[in-house]
Amino acid sequence: MDEFDIERVADPDLNEPVLVEGLPGVGHVGKLAAEHLLEELESELVRRVYSTHFPPQVSIDDGQAQLACAEFHAVTPEEGQDLLVLSGDHQAQNNQGHYGLTDTFLDIADEFGVQRVFALGGVPTGELIEEYDVLGATTTEEFKETLEESGVAFREDEPAGGIVGVSGLLLGLSKRRDVPASCLMGETSGYLVDPKSAQAVLEILQDVIGFEVDYSSLEDRADEMEEVVRKIQEMEQQNSPSPADEDLRYIG
Amino acid sequence: MDEFDIERVADPDLNEPVLVEGLPGVGHVGKLAAEHLLEELESELVRRVYSTHFPPQVSIDDGQAQLACAEFHAVTPEEGQDLLVLSGDHQAQNNQGHYGLTDTFLDIADEFGVQRVFALGGVPTGELIEEYDVLGATTTEEFKETLEESGVAFREDEPAGGIVGVSGLLLGLSKRRDVPASCLMGETSGYLVDPKSAQAVLEILQDVIGFEVDYSSLEDRADEMEEVVRKIQEMEQQNSPSPADEDLRYIG
Amino acid sequence: MDEFDIERVADPDLNEPVLVEGLPGVGHVGKLAAEHLLEELESELVRRVYSTHFPPQVSIDDGQAQLACAEFHAVTPEEGQDLLVLSGDHQAQNNQGHYGLTDTFLDIADEFGVQRVFALGGVPTGELIEEYDVLGATTTEEFKETLEESGVAFREDEPAGGIVGVSGLLLGLSKRRDVPASCLMGETSGYLVDPKSAQAVLEILQDVIGFEVDYSSLEDRADEMEEVVRKIQEMEQQNSPSPADEDLRYIG
Amino acid sequence: MDEFDIERVADPDLNEPVLVEGLPGVGHVGKLAAEHLLEELESELVRRVYSTHFPPQVSIDDGQAQLACAEFHAVTPEEGQDLLVLSGDHQAQNNQGHYGLTDTFLDIADEFGVQRVFALGGVPTGELIEEYDVLGATTTEEFKETLEESGVAFREDEPAGGIVGVSGLLLGLSKRRDVPASCLMGETSGYLVDPKSAQAVLEILQDVIGFEVDYSSLEDRADEMEEVVRKIQEMEQQNSPSPADEDLRYIG
Repeated sequence: MDEFDIERVADPDLNEPVLVEGLPGVGHVGKLAAEHLLEELESELVRRVYSTHFPPQVSIDDGQAQLACAEFHAVTPEEGQDLLVLSGDHQAQNNQGHYGLTDTFLDIADEFGVQRVFALGGVPTGELIEEYDVLGATTTEEFKETLEESGVAFREDEPAGGIVGVSGLLLGLSKRRDVPASCLMGETSGYLVDPKSAQAVLEILQDVIGFEVDYSSLEDRADEMEEVVRKIQEMEQQNSPSPADEDLRYIG
Repeated sequence: MDEFDIERVADPDLNEPVLVEGLPGVGHVGKLAAEHLLEELESELVRRVYSTHFPPQVSIDDGQAQLACAEFHAVTPEEGQDLLVLSGDHQAQNNQGHYGLTDTFLDIADEFGVQRVFALGGVPTGELIEEYDVLGATTTEEFKETLEESGVAFREDEPAGGIVGVSGLLLGLSKRRDVPASCLMGETSGYLVDPKSAQAVLEILQDVIGFEVDYSSLEDRADEMEEVVRKIQEMEQQNSPSPADEDLRYIG
Repeated sequence: MDEFDIERVADPDLNEPVLVEGLPGVGHVGKLAAEHLLEELESELVRRVYSTHFPPQVSIDDGQAQLACAEFHAVTPEEGQDLLVLSGDHQAQNNQGHYGLTDTFLDIADEFGVQRVFALGGVPTGELIEEYDVLGATTTEEFKETLEESGVAFREDEPAGGIVGVSGLLLGLSKRRDVPASCLMGETSGYLVDPKSAQAVLEILQDVIGFEVDYSSLEDRADEMEEVVRKIQEMEQQNSPSPADEDLRYIG
Repeated sequence: MDEFDIERVADPDLNEPVLVEGLPGVGHVGKLAAEHLLEELESELVRRVYSTHFPPQVSIDDGQAQLACAEFHAVTPEEGQDLLVLSGDHQAQNNQGHYGLTDTFLDIADEFGVQRVFALGGVPTGELIEEYDVLGATTTEEFKETLEESGVAFREDEPAGGIVGVSGLLLGLSKRRDVPASCLMGETSGYLVDPKSAQAVLEILQDVIGFEVDYSSLEDRADEMEEVVRKIQEMEQQNSPSPADEDLRYIG
């Protein structure tokens, strides 16, 4: 297998699509958002990307094995913006892998004529969120203004540590390719899978590029998570040790 | 030395052999099973695979050094199924090594005309086992049905974390090569080397492909391990700290 | 993106320049010193170096993303020594990256005709400093004498552990290229960002190669840090746990 | 710089030399032994090996920098066995580095016509040693017999974990090149730098290949270490925490 191995599943014509990336990360905000788009909108699997930088792992669904990969789905509504949605269960596990995979992702985006890139993710606040703001970062002033009009918050020196992983590199490497790119980061505690933050991010994206999705399934998951939070708070009041972030991150 | 370096020891003709892999892993179930086959059946060493991804290590047997490697043995009974058995003391120690080694293993299997792949391993339950079920995963529905007929359990979303390491990649990369592959995972506590789980896996394999082996030596080791468990439980009752998994994993 | 990817921003003619390196390290002494030079002297960005060995990260400034990189600025005063200043926020994260990046840095230095190399850094003493000595290491006896005349301390077997990272490799690899190189290490506690140590290093460099800079902004930061130290000492007296080095290293 | 970069310092003719390797390891036994040979016997530096797999580090001696490397010295006595002695302060820091460096070392040995390889090291016993036995491992039965005649101990399944690092790979890779190789492992506690164990190893080597060295300097260092041990035992009796292995390993 090559270091980066592209499986070509389908080659539909896309009309000036935008790339929407949602891989695992803080609060799984980006992953939840991208997967919600794929659940709610008609889409077609167009590419699988395998890599020796992914974990040496297969996932098992009903006894059938699927090698670790990232997937591109094409969304081509009769009206409105074509989307190329990048989702998956893994990120690369070292620096060279992160750079190489992101380059591979952008090569595929380029094949489909992607005009703009939206990386979706979460930004940890360390506390449970009341108001779900969405923080932004871009590669061009013009793109920044567009996002501000849709209510994206731009704060000096935030996020403080910059943006790490594929979402960060999608900005950095798109800029070097002169493709306008942005990252939409939903505020989230960082302790829990956060469907509400994912919804906040999608509502912004919806306002910027326009699509019709129903949020009830995300809202249902949000209710489940609030139930989890309640239980944890009870546990803490009973002075029993609270579950570790690690556990929580994978609840829900 | 090359990154993956194949030593050709012998080249017997095999008749539509199946690959049986048993490298170190949870409870050493796969390793015990593969090594038991080689102890009980006449076999011939055909390939050694060295790799810069194995530990920089030699094993010492009676003062003689052997560089870390994986070995392929051919089993060619007068009647019944030819086997190509992959065993060894090491797995790769990083992602690229896992992918590259598994590709190398499948290239060798291809040379010998392997028709089906059986990866043997253990699946940890976290508790001592009464009933030794064998969990399955495959690359084709047809293979799944064959295994179900022999009593392999297929459970939705199990194993939850998928399958990691060579056993997982044998499934994932065989599927991409259109070679039917399966993984037989004996339930095991995960705390101890588990000969009983290895026997449960072999009894399934025996039922699927057919061979004649005696299990008394495995049963003897199982008795030794139960002795170990008894001792550990006594120690725990005496509130002395129980040996770490790490220690236990290498008892027996 | 290549493993080491050079962005050519400008190509001014430099007259026998010296390379001054200040990347992150102990007490951020070298980084503070190099950045202070760039704040105080007129300079021009000439090169950016990107690498797959840098963290997969973008920094965000006022909403705009910049991919992790190291930067070369040219300083060309009407009178006096031309400088090529190497600064940035990152070091490589593995051995091959350190070697490859340093080689790349020296290739760029060679392009601009660099005659001598000055690596700036800190050497940890484990205690708060009264007298800010600057420790030296070089690749030639002649260079050592020059530095001794300017007050650089050379002590047998110091620093005991040698010099690690880009600063160390700039010495080691320059020597192999027959380019005289030195490392100026300001003594620092190792617990805090240390502007005073950076000033001590710059004063030596100023004496050796000559330039005119004002130190008031560094002195202001030094006052802030002393305020931090006072607070920490108070906290310690109150038996509250003292902040971890890690935290402190990034204060200021 | 290349991944493995050989600096050719001198090219004396050697008469069927043996390679003697002593790089850092358990109790620094091999390193002490090899360095003692170089102190006691006339030798000439013939090769330096640099590698991107060594730490990114220079050592500083009296202010002068030397890039991390391994060194080959030639020992050519008027009478008796020619030696090629491999010493240094570092081992590679990952698997590929270990394999690649050892291959490079054996290429250099081959250039000089090396007929036999002696890897020197220590084997940890976990307790302070009274009787300094030397454990052996080889690649041929014939070599084993030779060593047994000189008092080397060969014990079934010892060392239990095999031999790791350059010493182990020198056996494994020499065997694949059909060069007889052995490893002489002095028993040592594993907690301290152990000059006595180094002397025990050298006395065996002296008996096997013959050379004249004086051991008084090693004996002096052994006395210093016993002083250290005494102090530690006192500290322990005073229930103060004993120094960590790490510290101890670098005492002396």
